[in-house]
Amino acid sequence: MRQETINRIRKFRDERDWNQFHTPSNMAKSIVIESGELLECFQWSEDDYDLQHVKEELADILVYCQDMIDCLNLDADEIVNMKMDLNEAKYPIDKAKGNSTKYDKL
Amino acid sequence: MRQETINRIRKFRDERDWNQFHTPSNMAKSIVIESGELLECFQWSEDDYDLQHVKEELADILVYCQDMIDCLNLDADEIVNMKMDLNEAKYPIDKAKGNSTKYDKL
Amino acid sequence: MRQETINRIRKFRDERDWNQFHTPSNMAKSIVIESGELLECFQWSEDDYDLQHVKEELADILVYCQDMIDCLNLDADEIVNMKMDLNEAKYPIDKAKGNSTKYDKL
Amino acid sequence: MRQETINRIRKFRDERDWNQFHTPSNMAKSIVIESGELLECFQWSEDDYDLQHVKEELADILVYCQDMIDCLNLDADEIVNMKMDLNEAKYPIDKAKGNSTKYDKL
Repeated sequence: MRQETINRIRKFRDERDWNQFHTPSNMAKSIVIESGELLECFQWSEDDYDLQHVKEELADILVYCQDMIDCLNLDADEIVNMKMDLNEAKYPIDKAKGNSTKYDKL
Repeated sequence: MRQETINRIRKFRDERDWNQFHTPSNMAKSIVIESGELLECFQWSEDDYDLQHVKEELADILVYCQDMIDCLNLDADEIVNMKMDLNEAKYPIDKAKGNSTKYDKL
Repeated sequence: MRQETINRIRKFRDERDWNQFHTPSNMAKSIVIESGELLECFQWSEDDYDLQHVKEELADILVYCQDMIDCLNLDADEIVNMKMDLNEAKYPIDKAKGNSTKYDKL
Repeated sequence: MRQETINRIRKFRDERDWNQFHTPSNMAKSIVIESGELLECFQWSEDDYDLQHVKEELADILVYCQDMIDCLNLDADEIVNMKMDLNEAKYPIDKAKGNSTKYDKL
C-alpha cells in the first residue's frame, strides 16, 4: 500500500479514538472474523463469487493488518522479508516445485 | 509493502510453479487458516504472547493477501480506498468516536 | 454425544483445573482456531484429504463446543432447536429446495 | 444432542435437497465461517456479549458439525473418544494441571 493509503487508515482510526480498542489480541480476532467473511464468498462454490464482495472483505483484512502492524509498531516489509527467508528455507525450489505439500511432509 | 517485497513474494511463487494452486477460493481458505494461527498466539491470554510468533503469522497473512490480490488482478490501494469510503460513511465521526459499536447498531 | 462422552470431557477438564481458562471468549477463540485447523485439511484440495486428521480436528471442535456449552450453562438440544426454529422460518422449503442461496437473497 | 434433535437437522437438510452441497470441504468452510461469527460476539470485549447471539452462533456450529459427521459417515462419540485418548496422553495431569501451556511446550 502507498503511504497515502496507510495515512488514511490511521487518520480514520485516530479521528474516532479507536486506538483504545486496537490491542494486538483484538486485532487478531478482527482479522480472523473478516477472513471468515471473505471465505463466506466461496462457501458453496469455488468459482461463482461476487467480486465486489470479495474486494470489500479482502480490504477489511488489509486494514486490520495495518492496524495490527501499527499497534505493535511493526514494519510490514521487515516482517514479510523475515518470513520469506524462512519460507525459502522450508520450501527449496527443487522439492516444492509444482507441489502443494506442506514443508513438514516434503 | 514496497514493490521490492511484493516482487519477492511473486518470484517465490513463480519459481515453485504455485500459481496453479492460487485460486481465489484457495487463497481465502489460506488467509483464514493463517488468521487462526495468528489468533492462537492469543488463545489463553491477551497480553502474554510470543512476539516473534505473532510477526510470522501476521506476515503469512500479508503474503497470502498479496497472492490473492495477484490472482484476482486487484490493486491494494484501490480496494482499500474503496472500502475506506464505505467505512467513513458507515462510521460518522460524531457517532463512532470512542465507541466500538458496530455500524448497524450505531 | 452420549452422556458418558460428555462426562469424560468434563472429567478431563476438571482433573487439570482448566475451568479457569474456559471463559466464553477463550472458548470462542479456541473453536475458531480448531476450525482453521480442520479447514487446513482441505486447503489445496477438496477431495484429497487425510480422514484421520479430519476426525481429530472435528473432534477438537466438538470438545470445545461442549466446553463452551458448559461454561455458559447451556443445553445443546435447547439451543439447536431454538436455532432450527429460526432456520426453518428463514429457509422455507419451497424457496430453498436445491438452492444454496443465503436467506437474505432468497 | 438427543437423537430427536439430530433427526430434525437431517430432516431439515433432506427436505431442502441440501445434501448435494454438503461436501466435507464445504462443511469445513461452513464451520469456520460460523466460528468467526461466534467470535464476533467477543470482538471488542471479553465480558460484554449478547448471550442470545452467542447461542445462535454456537448452535450454527453444532448443526454444521452434525452435517459434517453425517456427510463423512462418522460417529461423534467415536471420534471424540479417540481424540480424548490422544489428549489424555498429550496432557498428563501432573504436568498440565492449572497450566494452559500447549503440549509441545509442556
